[in-house]
Amino acid sequence: MTSSDPSAEPRAATIATIARDVGVSVATVSKVLNGRDDVAPDTRARVEESLDRHRYRRRTRRAPVAHRQIHLVFHEFDSAWAMEIIRGVETATSASGIELVLAQLGGRHRPTDTWLDGVVARPPLGVLFVACGLTRAQQAKLRRRHIPFVAVDTDSVTPESVPTVGSNNWNGGLIAARHLLELGHRRIAVIAGPEDLLCSRARVAGFSSAHDEAGLAMDAALVRHGTFYLDAGYEHGLELLRSASRPTAVFAGSDTQAMGVLKAARQLGLRLPEDLSVVGYDNLPVAAWTGPALTTVHQPLQDMAGTATRMLLDLSDGVEPASTRIDLGTELVVRESTAPPAQDR
Amino acid sequence: MTSSDPSAEPRAATIATIARDVGVSVATVSKVLNGRDDVAPDTRARVEESLDRHRYRRRTRRAPVAHRQIHLVFHEFDSAWAMEIIRGVETATSASGIELVLAQLGGRHRPTDTWLDGVVARPPLGVLFVACGLTRAQQAKLRRRHIPFVAVDTDSVTPESVPTVGSNNWNGGLIAARHLLELGHRRIAVIAGPEDLLCSRARVAGFSSAHDEAGLAMDAALVRHGTFYLDAGYEHGLELLRSASRPTAVFAGSDTQAMGVLKAARQLGLRLPEDLSVVGYDNLPVAAWTGPALTTVHQPLQDMAGTATRMLLDLSDGVEPASTRIDLGTELVVRESTAPPAQDR
Repeated sequence: MTSSDPSAEPRAATIATIARDVGVSVATVSKVLNGRDDVAPDTRARVEESLDRHRYRRRTRRAPVAHRQIHLVFHEFDSAWAMEIIRGVETATSASGIELVLAQLGGRHRPTDTWLDGVVARPPLGVLFVACGLTRAQQAKLRRRHIPFVAVDTDSVTPESVPTVGSNNWNGGLIAARHLLELGHRRIAVIAGPEDLLCSRARVAGFSSAHDEAGLAMDAALVRHGTFYLDAGYEHGLELLRSASRPTAVFAGSDTQAMGVLKAARQLGLRLPEDLSVVGYDNLPVAAWTGPALTTVHQPLQDMAGTATRMLLDLSDGVEPASTRIDLGTELVVRESTAPPAQDR
Repeated sequence: MTSSDPSAEPRAATIATIARDVGVSVATVSKVLNGRDDVAPDTRARVEESLDRHRYRRRTRRAPVAHRQIHLVFHEFDSAWAMEIIRGVETATSASGIELVLAQLGGRHRPTDTWLDGVVARPPLGVLFVACGLTRAQQAKLRRRHIPFVAVDTDSVTPESVPTVGSNNWNGGLIAARHLLELGHRRIAVIAGPEDLLCSRARVAGFSSAHDEAGLAMDAALVRHGTFYLDAGYEHGLELLRSASRPTAVFAGSDTQAMGVLKAARQLGLRLPEDLSVVGYDNLPVAAWTGPALTTVHQPLQDMAGTATRMLLDLSDGVEPASTRIDLGTELVVRESTAPPAQDR
């Protein structure tokens, strides 16, 4: 690459550059940048395309004053799980006197452009996404306005360009398996989350590694995938526990799923932990309340949310994070739902 | 009262009236009204007092443009219970394209004046309080700025001056008792919420009324009060169930408390529902997941939150509610934790 390569050291594009390129007025470009809605969709698209192509970034000193608020955006509200995240974020924002604006995408994984235009029109200090994110064009739109964004995601697939806080899924699977193997279990079933989520596969991989280090093989027929909800635990649980060579332990993908396994076990008249050990995942408050109380992998949701919020506020102050991907540690919490298998007692 | 009574038809106070009364400049009164912090605390207090005394109300057309947002303020975040409220509010606000700002008071029942000044400085469409509220002076401050507020409160003590959405606690106690009496239970314990909350007393009163209509007497020794949390259910449960003449059924003050009763019953080796029937309260998602699944009184938290939000948005449009106190109906949801007592089976 030589210095004559026009892409090497592009001259910083100005609004005038963009206006000339698209063939519109400077005022029109300005309107698009400010998220105004009185620009024809076709014109807006052409301006956005030119802004992207020229890697246009508004100069910091000209950016509108950010409101002392952050947006917290969920893929969907998932009861206790979402509440733990909200608690972690609120603790961090209220400590800094910052307003917390809450939204959810009703199950979609990307916000609408209308929603994003609203954010751009009244720029916050930043946006925190939970189990959802932005298209490349949407990312570019926020970057141009110097609105930082961070993701909280237990899945491990967030693109490198988005600073993300998650937790160590592989280690979660490893410590769950080690615990059950140490108790003497040899036929252990895994009911994991959806197979297309990396976090599910990472936990199964960690589970498998614990078998490897113990010189034992996992039975692939005992690994199932399903949603993180009660029904998946119940249905897979019934099927696994009815089989002639039923497992003596089950590692579930969430505490909610584990409650489905408990339900299946009750229905089949199995005693816990005498006839079956169950390990959950997440360590939601409810895990301590079930009968028996759940042994589970603690996923530090509040800490993840707090860490992501502080990272976002740092970014809004112009402080780049040391790393764009932070995974907090997972820990095993042993309660009453695990014990040695019956033949060992 | 004659027309010469100065309080009968007070001439509307202007900022100049207040300034003259207190002996400060018009600019100072204006600063106080706008929540600015560059006014000496003593001066601010005197201006506020004069504004109250003169029943000063800013003229609507001069009110600053409200942001398209509402504040949702919790006494504290109480996991699944709070999440149900958030879901109900978010459904209503997102349908109207309104921003939802979330806050919690860390267990206090009144916000700080600093927080309120922040709200006044950037007026929202309204403020929704959950299990918390405002002092009279704080109410006056919001009223002067035409910022409406509504409470969601299961307790029945909100002052008449604050529009409130709750639920019918008395009916909740009544239908729980009718269900247990119809099953044949005669020794029924009640573990209610804190005795200083009207909602707790209303439920016990409803419970008692069902006994009255059946010509039966309640045993006062079987009525206990405690927090709404697991430990209260567990501890009262252990004590009640260990007694020589133990009850055959327990009506708990919340689903979480009911889970504590289930825990106590398991510990004492009692089978549910064979040896003991349990009725919860709230119908949180977890009630369907326990073993056995909880029979419980459905408190329509999402609907209460949605109704309160729409009432708030109406008020922000100048529409007064038909009633300042709305109690939504409670319903019994029968699951697996209730059955006829053992001697009847």
